[in-house]
Amino acid sequence: MALTVGVIGAGRIGKLHVDNLRLIPQVRVKSVSDVVINHLDSWAKEKQVEVLTSDYRDILNDPEIDAVFICSPTNTHATIIKEAAVAGKHIFCEKPVSFTVEETKEALEVVEKTQVKLQVGFNRRFDPNFRKIRELVQNGTIGEPHILRITSRDPEPPSIDYIKSSGGLFMDMMIHDFDMARYIMGSEVVEVSAYGAVLVDPAIGEAGDIDTAVVTLKFANGALGVIDNSRQAVYGYDQRLEVFGSKGAARADNNRPTNVEVSTAEHVLKDKPLYFFLERYTQAYIHEVAEFVKAILHNEPVICSGFDGLQAQRIAEAAKKSLETGVPVKLEEVNPAAAI
Amino acid sequence: MALTVGVIGAGRIGKLHVDNLRLIPQVRVKSVSDVVINHLDSWAKEKQVEVLTSDYRDILNDPEIDAVFICSPTNTHATIIKEAAVAGKHIFCEKPVSFTVEETKEALEVVEKTQVKLQVGFNRRFDPNFRKIRELVQNGTIGEPHILRITSRDPEPPSIDYIKSSGGLFMDMMIHDFDMARYIMGSEVVEVSAYGAVLVDPAIGEAGDIDTAVVTLKFANGALGVIDNSRQAVYGYDQRLEVFGSKGAARADNNRPTNVEVSTAEHVLKDKPLYFFLERYTQAYIHEVAEFVKAILHNEPVICSGFDGLQAQRIAEAAKKSLETGVPVKLEEVNPAAAI
Amino acid sequence: MALTVGVIGAGRIGKLHVDNLRLIPQVRVKSVSDVVINHLDSWAKEKQVEVLTSDYRDILNDPEIDAVFICSPTNTHATIIKEAAVAGKHIFCEKPVSFTVEETKEALEVVEKTQVKLQVGFNRRFDPNFRKIRELVQNGTIGEPHILRITSRDPEPPSIDYIKSSGGLFMDMMIHDFDMARYIMGSEVVEVSAYGAVLVDPAIGEAGDIDTAVVTLKFANGALGVIDNSRQAVYGYDQRLEVFGSKGAARADNNRPTNVEVSTAEHVLKDKPLYFFLERYTQAYIHEVAEFVKAILHNEPVICSGFDGLQAQRIAEAAKKSLETGVPVKLEEVNPAAAI
Amino acid sequence: MALTVGVIGAGRIGKLHVDNLRLIPQVRVKSVSDVVINHLDSWAKEKQVEVLTSDYRDILNDPEIDAVFICSPTNTHATIIKEAAVAGKHIFCEKPVSFTVEETKEALEVVEKTQVKLQVGFNRRFDPNFRKIRELVQNGTIGEPHILRITSRDPEPPSIDYIKSSGGLFMDMMIHDFDMARYIMGSEVVEVSAYGAVLVDPAIGEAGDIDTAVVTLKFANGALGVIDNSRQAVYGYDQRLEVFGSKGAARADNNRPTNVEVSTAEHVLKDKPLYFFLERYTQAYIHEVAEFVKAILHNEPVICSGFDGLQAQRIAEAAKKSLETGVPVKLEEVNPAAAI
Repeated sequence: MALTVGVIGAGRIGKLHVDNLRLIPQVRVKSVSDVVINHLDSWAKEKQVEVLTSDYRDILNDPEIDAVFICSPTNTHATIIKEAAVAGKHIFCEKPVSFTVEETKEALEVVEKTQVKLQVGFNRRFDPNFRKIRELVQNGTIGEPHILRITSRDPEPPSIDYIKSSGGLFMDMMIHDFDMARYIMGSEVVEVSAYGAVLVDPAIGEAGDIDTAVVTLKFANGALGVIDNSRQAVYGYDQRLEVFGSKGAARADNNRPTNVEVSTAEHVLKDKPLYFFLERYTQAYIHEVAEFVKAILHNEPVICSGFDGLQAQRIAEAAKKSLETGVPVKLEEVNPAAAI
Repeated sequence: MALTVGVIGAGRIGKLHVDNLRLIPQVRVKSVSDVVINHLDSWAKEKQVEVLTSDYRDILNDPEIDAVFICSPTNTHATIIKEAAVAGKHIFCEKPVSFTVEETKEALEVVEKTQVKLQVGFNRRFDPNFRKIRELVQNGTIGEPHILRITSRDPEPPSIDYIKSSGGLFMDMMIHDFDMARYIMGSEVVEVSAYGAVLVDPAIGEAGDIDTAVVTLKFANGALGVIDNSRQAVYGYDQRLEVFGSKGAARADNNRPTNVEVSTAEHVLKDKPLYFFLERYTQAYIHEVAEFVKAILHNEPVICSGFDGLQAQRIAEAAKKSLETGVPVKLEEVNPAAAI
Repeated sequence: MALTVGVIGAGRIGKLHVDNLRLIPQVRVKSVSDVVINHLDSWAKEKQVEVLTSDYRDILNDPEIDAVFICSPTNTHATIIKEAAVAGKHIFCEKPVSFTVEETKEALEVVEKTQVKLQVGFNRRFDPNFRKIRELVQNGTIGEPHILRITSRDPEPPSIDYIKSSGGLFMDMMIHDFDMARYIMGSEVVEVSAYGAVLVDPAIGEAGDIDTAVVTLKFANGALGVIDNSRQAVYGYDQRLEVFGSKGAARADNNRPTNVEVSTAEHVLKDKPLYFFLERYTQAYIHEVAEFVKAILHNEPVICSGFDGLQAQRIAEAAKKSLETGVPVKLEEVNPAAAI
Repeated sequence: MALTVGVIGAGRIGKLHVDNLRLIPQVRVKSVSDVVINHLDSWAKEKQVEVLTSDYRDILNDPEIDAVFICSPTNTHATIIKEAAVAGKHIFCEKPVSFTVEETKEALEVVEKTQVKLQVGFNRRFDPNFRKIRELVQNGTIGEPHILRITSRDPEPPSIDYIKSSGGLFMDMMIHDFDMARYIMGSEVVEVSAYGAVLVDPAIGEAGDIDTAVVTLKFANGALGVIDNSRQAVYGYDQRLEVFGSKGAARADNNRPTNVEVSTAEHVLKDKPLYFFLERYTQAYIHEVAEFVKAILHNEPVICSGFDGLQAQRIAEAAKKSLETGVPVKLEEVNPAAAI
């Protein structure tokens, strides 16, 4: 029982997946593609990657390849998903699946027909803190969930260039939290009300985006939720979550490099939260890839499906519309089976 | 330099104020009134209260009385404020000032004319945790405030009878948080968007109220805020607050009876939050009364004015309207001087 | 059912007891004595103290007085205890009872004969944190206790003059921890091994004392314990305790003015521990006095008896001897009944 | 720049080092030896180990091997160290180096002559929490260190068979803490006073060992320290450390699987400490091996030397003698250069 994998896109996240795949005994990372590859030789050698190509179709056409990781820019995701599905490859695709709900639906239709597995890269589902909170909701420890609170703040804003091509805060950043909201609550979002502001950097506003947002959610089960985002928390990557229910509440705090507490004549202090998302979610990225491999090898459902990717996009679009119109926006309830 | 005080209404909160006033050397609690007084004899004797009357006007007519505490039912507040002001008494009035903005404005007009001091009983302003956070905002430690988060959940719902006469969750319960929002941010609320639900007890819904709410706020300074309320947190009185800004963040957690941590084969556990609001805000109630006395004796501004009481009511009314209409509601900006 | 009290010694702690006694409805603080009283007039008036005298015997001779608080210098305690007992007054005596085991035993013999109640002022027994830990031991939550750890560090050293007359670190400071050890473990100390050093201030060494100590204990039940003391913790008054047993462990951390956590680009910080012992043990001092009054009015045993005071002194003497000789010192097991 | 490694002993810890060595790009784990190897075939294949032998001398005789990891039983360490040193191999040796100071000194003499590098496996030096505390001491943040407190409790006792061959609690378990004490304080231990007891399991006492111990230390710099050990903390692996000094204090708490806090009507609870030492010290084991490789490749001093191994043994022997004699035991001060 083994799995041969190709990775499309060898940027930061593609390389991370290679490292994490190599921790799994059953996996062989055979091929990597990127638009430019000449700088990747020694890296590929060290990682025992056998094929390095500038054309991802070389990977799709390789009959030895069982599964592909799509880590290329977002605007290529939908096309590659469709081609990979037709080629019979299982697919791990980074988030978001695309910039529009329509494009994602088209891709999912092909996946549906070809019956390959598709996992979308919402890595935070695999974080031990958040996973435990989901379990506490699922096993009834906190009773019926009533209120969800997510705080998600980046340590610093991306470049203005990135922001211009990112799809905006809701699609690029808060989409993680929209997915987390559905994952934790086990219920669909039926209404969204968005407040946004430009408080961090006027240049972000000039680029057509916001940098601060508070979004409230209504869920199908009647519960309420709120997400707040900022592009810049000077103290580090702030990733917290709390769910309150009829029998109790559960909350996850930030992770820190050490738990050392220092007391001096001036202060009592502890470590700031981990700053960099790859450090904060190290375990989540490892589990995410391992669970994908496991789902394929044991023919189990993936933990984050194409439908999950689609729903997060739907909520992001609704949030954007709410911000633009100044009023809450309702989402149509969809049947996962008939969704695509 | 001394102050003679009369207390109108000898329910739970009136009696508490008597105890706290008696801690202040300069204060003499001369008189207490209540509709029914025959059961209060031994209590009054123990507290060295000299006059016990069923007519609060006896207090207003007593030339020795410098200040009154209005702790009677909400529907009597505005009338008594006006009469007390005309009688030249300084006034401490429990929250809310009244059930309608109009009624409050009328009362404040009389206070304005008579130039007596009026402090409204938003006790949480005097809590050491929240006060420290206000200082951190005021002294610039966390920079420009961007996002405010308040969680405020009662340990158990009041009786349905109380709920029917309470003015509803926004006027009775979240009004504390509306006041806190203005106090912490040092900026007026300019827009409110409310989500509400009946998740705790259907009888609350049948009584015309909600028991769970998430309300988002826009402030005049551009910042955003969110408040969540529940009528029933089974683990105790949940009173937390967090403010996030350009230079950092500050958050207050719940207070607990002890800080003992117990580790067993099953659990690591600590105390639940203090359950009862009088226990949780013991210090706040003491400071509140002491600051009122100090403001009178030194002729300083009170920390929570009639205008503050009015603004909290305005926000509560806007929240109610937002809940009813399903869309955000803007608040007119008002000049404190011209407000009334 | 009421109690008339006289307070002997109106220094900081005597005045505190007056304030705390005045919180108890059944108590009348009739008299206060001190060697010098002319500066106490306005204080006594404010506190409604009726008799102010420079001779404590005026209190002992007053037939209205039911109980006395001995808050005079340590070298007067034993004498006044004996006289008060003979006068039939119940006695609250500040710690330590005396500077020598012999002197204390003599005083206790008189108390024993006259059958008045005697409570010794080990205030920390009444602290909510430590009291909860004692309960957890008593009710078996942590099983058989195996290891006790006490950390007790003052925020700053007393004056060298005070140190010279204090009886030394073991008798003046660690005596609190020796008492706490017996209280928590519910077992007598049978052996003591002391390490001491002068690390804070050489002048303390020149005055014949140490400023830093680590003392290990063996208990009659087989358990082990360790206490560490320092005369100067620059971050505040450090008062922690932990007990480890066959079924778990319990630990108490320091109390802080607020629980606010502040995150900035430089730090994540929280409040330092409360600095001043009267602030740290506010509740303990209130409970201590209330429990003494309750024990008299209901004829119940006191929570901290003369025997408890004697045993703490015995351990302190053993610790001193261990430090001097460089080897552990065994304590004779004593029967409380036959102890004196 | 690369390093070829052989691992002697393929038990739990030997296998762990293989995994961690394989994370380092410059390392090739060529050979593994164990007394019995037939069950290791598939494991060796998966880990790309090229040579599997039942005779460790095959590794020592292989000219390609640059360094060996000695993970065989303690009674073989000294012999293999000497042979490996003579063969010119750098050495990583698990703790303790041997069961007697004499044997260790003999081994270190050979290492000294042959000038190979020797690192002893005190893994906890590489834990991020403890490492940070060492830095805070070294960089003066907490001033001159005055008091060290180490708590180190295993989740459950080893088998009685293991205990019989372990060298006893001081040599097998507390030896980690003796090393940590020297590492944190940057000063040698000059006196030891040990208290021990059998409180967990009488069978441990029958096997000639103790299961509970409190040991106090005097350091050359005048500071004091205390270590407490238990063979059984029912709530998990309890690994804490605190150092107190003239300018402040620093403390490390336990690590937990998640930081989720759950509040219910009964409890507020959080995760128990990590239970298993390989989980608790995952990072430490990775860093330990990486630092050893780095020390060889860059010809730098190792972080935990043979002398460090020797000193920890000396303290363990002194503690044992103190327990047996009932009095403190002094250690001769030794010059590292002349130590062996």
